[in-house]
Amino acid sequence: MTTIKNFGIIGGDKRQLYCGKSIADDGYGVYVCGFEKCDETLGLEQSDIQTVCEMCDAFIMPLPATRDGVTLNTPFSENKIFAEKDFFVYSSKKPVFAGMKNKLLYQSDCIYDYAAREEFAVANAVPTSEGAIECAMREYEGTINGSHCLVTGYGRIGRVLSQMLRGLGADVTVSARQQKDLAYIRSFGMKAVRTSELPNGFDIIFNTVPDRILDAQTLAKTAGGSLVIDLASPPGGVDLVSAERLGIKAVQALSLPGRVAPKTAGIIIKNAVYNIIKEENL
Amino acid sequence: MTTIKNFGIIGGDKRQLYCGKSIADDGYGVYVCGFEKCDETLGLEQSDIQTVCEMCDAFIMPLPATRDGVTLNTPFSENKIFAEKDFFVYSSKKPVFAGMKNKLLYQSDCIYDYAAREEFAVANAVPTSEGAIECAMREYEGTINGSHCLVTGYGRIGRVLSQMLRGLGADVTVSARQQKDLAYIRSFGMKAVRTSELPNGFDIIFNTVPDRILDAQTLAKTAGGSLVIDLASPPGGVDLVSAERLGIKAVQALSLPGRVAPKTAGIIIKNAVYNIIKEENL
Amino acid sequence: MTTIKNFGIIGGDKRQLYCGKSIADDGYGVYVCGFEKCDETLGLEQSDIQTVCEMCDAFIMPLPATRDGVTLNTPFSENKIFAEKDFFVYSSKKPVFAGMKNKLLYQSDCIYDYAAREEFAVANAVPTSEGAIECAMREYEGTINGSHCLVTGYGRIGRVLSQMLRGLGADVTVSARQQKDLAYIRSFGMKAVRTSELPNGFDIIFNTVPDRILDAQTLAKTAGGSLVIDLASPPGGVDLVSAERLGIKAVQALSLPGRVAPKTAGIIIKNAVYNIIKEENL
Amino acid sequence: MTTIKNFGIIGGDKRQLYCGKSIADDGYGVYVCGFEKCDETLGLEQSDIQTVCEMCDAFIMPLPATRDGVTLNTPFSENKIFAEKDFFVYSSKKPVFAGMKNKLLYQSDCIYDYAAREEFAVANAVPTSEGAIECAMREYEGTINGSHCLVTGYGRIGRVLSQMLRGLGADVTVSARQQKDLAYIRSFGMKAVRTSELPNGFDIIFNTVPDRILDAQTLAKTAGGSLVIDLASPPGGVDLVSAERLGIKAVQALSLPGRVAPKTAGIIIKNAVYNIIKEENL
Repeated sequence: MTTIKNFGIIGGDKRQLYCGKSIADDGYGVYVCGFEKCDETLGLEQSDIQTVCEMCDAFIMPLPATRDGVTLNTPFSENKIFAEKDFFVYSSKKPVFAGMKNKLLYQSDCIYDYAAREEFAVANAVPTSEGAIECAMREYEGTINGSHCLVTGYGRIGRVLSQMLRGLGADVTVSARQQKDLAYIRSFGMKAVRTSELPNGFDIIFNTVPDRILDAQTLAKTAGGSLVIDLASPPGGVDLVSAERLGIKAVQALSLPGRVAPKTAGIIIKNAVYNIIKEENL
Repeated sequence: MTTIKNFGIIGGDKRQLYCGKSIADDGYGVYVCGFEKCDETLGLEQSDIQTVCEMCDAFIMPLPATRDGVTLNTPFSENKIFAEKDFFVYSSKKPVFAGMKNKLLYQSDCIYDYAAREEFAVANAVPTSEGAIECAMREYEGTINGSHCLVTGYGRIGRVLSQMLRGLGADVTVSARQQKDLAYIRSFGMKAVRTSELPNGFDIIFNTVPDRILDAQTLAKTAGGSLVIDLASPPGGVDLVSAERLGIKAVQALSLPGRVAPKTAGIIIKNAVYNIIKEENL
Repeated sequence: MTTIKNFGIIGGDKRQLYCGKSIADDGYGVYVCGFEKCDETLGLEQSDIQTVCEMCDAFIMPLPATRDGVTLNTPFSENKIFAEKDFFVYSSKKPVFAGMKNKLLYQSDCIYDYAAREEFAVANAVPTSEGAIECAMREYEGTINGSHCLVTGYGRIGRVLSQMLRGLGADVTVSARQQKDLAYIRSFGMKAVRTSELPNGFDIIFNTVPDRILDAQTLAKTAGGSLVIDLASPPGGVDLVSAERLGIKAVQALSLPGRVAPKTAGIIIKNAVYNIIKEENL
Repeated sequence: MTTIKNFGIIGGDKRQLYCGKSIADDGYGVYVCGFEKCDETLGLEQSDIQTVCEMCDAFIMPLPATRDGVTLNTPFSENKIFAEKDFFVYSSKKPVFAGMKNKLLYQSDCIYDYAAREEFAVANAVPTSEGAIECAMREYEGTINGSHCLVTGYGRIGRVLSQMLRGLGADVTVSARQQKDLAYIRSFGMKAVRTSELPNGFDIIFNTVPDRILDAQTLAKTAGGSLVIDLASPPGGVDLVSAERLGIKAVQALSLPGRVAPKTAGIIIKNAVYNIIKEENL
């Protein structure tokens, strides 16, 4: 239904390539730029930035689109692409889909943020949860099956991760603050505890809460003998210094979707972009 | 932590008896009133309304507390208990926990509504879902296992019911309006469709949406050959007249918690009451 | 691949009609006989026994084929069909698929027993398990979700039923005699106990073992306060007399596939018949 | 009930240490030998072989007990322990539990093989399945959730692995030869196919069959675009040379329990040893 015929993928990592690949599989033309150092681009045609700007009707920027506010985030290229003078002067008025667009100094009405959409965050809970499980499998000397797991927090990641752990045969406890979430947790056959009253005796603790809930005192009381995996963005929910002092093994697992499942992460970007196109009639 | 020593259970059905029984098992005194026609009261002591008002420090009314606004809802008694002159004049100032308290003409600050709490509604999604499954097992000539099921709506009941159906080995599709819910549905290994674009070919359709989404046109397009179970409160989400005209078997399944699992429903009332006591420091 | 063009369904209950219906949906001709009292035959054409014998290349008899050894099992007809003089003299040499063929006094090389096949028994564990769950939902005053369930025996029904109960969110314990089965049970996230060392404290006990394992002593020790559902064929695994004396509610749930899911049970018969046709090159 | 007071752990890898640790946690004395190069022995006391032989009433050998038939398998030691002259002359008549005891040239009535027990093999299907999933997570660029997985074979590993994959939200197909296994597979909500008729279109193929079922022709027909993980012991079920020629990524994943979950693998050894002790009244 859209008038877009060709998409330009400007910078980013493997996720963006898989995003472009999946768009190409849907029948659109796809041109990529900023992947010179990448050994293979999944069959997508590489071009310079000006050609891509000309050829394409819409553009997908990385997640995050920029780290310094001025140049695009191009880990697979040694050439800098300046957002404004290299890109926006040529792409002007065509729709641009960017991750965390607020980080860009240059702003415009035709920039849409795919990473700000809730279905994007929910969908990313899947690769994040699998990455957390892969991390636990690597770090824990027993099996997840039969282990006692605590998941703190029943937000997006907590909901998906707890179901997966149960699906592997773990004995799963989930903590939450709200009574309604405790009721949901129990309805799925898992144990529910208040976040303020964490018991102990867990083999693995997955933290999904972006507050410092696992401070020194709680670690001492709850996490003795446990492996702790912190999934919360920095500064994280676990006091790593105290954990080390207490002899508790604690691991930070960050940016999991792009690292463990770039293909799925790329398709999640594509779906969010498609949803924007549909809603905005682009 | 509460100062309440004795609870009075005033009217209601088996749920209230199981609620009282579970409170008694926790060590409190429990007196019941309004169950003369009930053949057994789970070992709870029956008294007249005045004695109960005197003996007890808190009272639990039925769900709904009243049907006519004036007398309490006492299906197991032939004697009317007038809310105001029989009860409130004697219980004055002591806390009263009622279901749908707004239906009572008499109001007071010491009446708390357990049925208005979200964890109460979430917890009741469990007996409602099991009741829906029992209904499907009774009405459908095949097994749930291996059948193609559609659950419309991903609210409280949709979330719990869809997981249970999958747990029985059904092939489950869930419809929702919001993209984020579609993402959650997929994350649990189920198929997700927009409520506005329902496909057909289902053996059983469970409606949880309280809007008339299964009107004549949608029934004709989606539900041919299906068993339709409507879980939405009256007027319901299914056009029953059109269903009959179209030769589609449609069943209304209402008030399931009290009918299929009074014991669990009673414990859910107890838990909501306890949560109120804790939050209000009663 | 078979030369069979028309199937005759001779007697039986709704399962046989659904079996015939499913065969007709696969493109074969289907004629039924012995359903005069049935209000609807799912669109299948009724004929007298001689016509059916002439028209058809293969015949499907009920399960069991006969109760008295001499006449066919035709609960939906008032006319007796004598196996030998009414049927076999006319059908001679054409393949006949019967359930429990040993019960027939008349025997012949062209009679195949679909009910003796293991995949038939395994597939019927599904409707049996669902029937057991429906029975539990009807008889137990709480929800299966959150209840403590014991399944005795880890044969066909035990394997399927325990997974379904877990899928509904029950806390499931399974008993078995062999260490290897205990290992399987644990691998699926359930508790495993020796059949000889049953603990107590269960809300619902499902017996699948065809030995009298729930005798008076075991009932007294294990089943106080439980609902007991006996799925084992007569004489069953539960001492019902002692159960009643001990005040334990015990229910026999027999012949579940045909009663709770005739459609699925009929398709299971069809699949077994098809497997015989393939293996025997009929 | 046993008269054994002290167990000697003679050689092996981390599994044996975890086995010993778990035995020590049960209250027995435990002495270990052959772990000089191991940086930590989980708090277990190291001794020389003669002391251990004297102090202990029973001994646990590695899995496999020996690689050359003559010396014990001691990867964490540079000193050779000769089975006969270093160990059996001192331990004589006391029970010895060995993995794959047939590989030992020296044989005696008091050697029991824990690895030959079926519950040992079943229990090890759990760490093997998790190791396979960890491997898939590492090698596959998408998520397991939502992926199309084929598990060939429905033996011990097939049964456990397929349930775990479904628990992660994969779309799971399992192949088997026997009709009864196809019926079991369907009963758990998964797709069942004949091993001789494998379809294609899978993201990940897990082979559990110890025959060369994925030969060049089958790979070409079934596995194009798939990641293939071979769990069968050498020579394995996958023609790796043809896979490489066809551009199909194939990975051998062997000896998983000891590598991915030594703690669980050690407890599985302990449980098998305890079962032998009980059965043999040692």
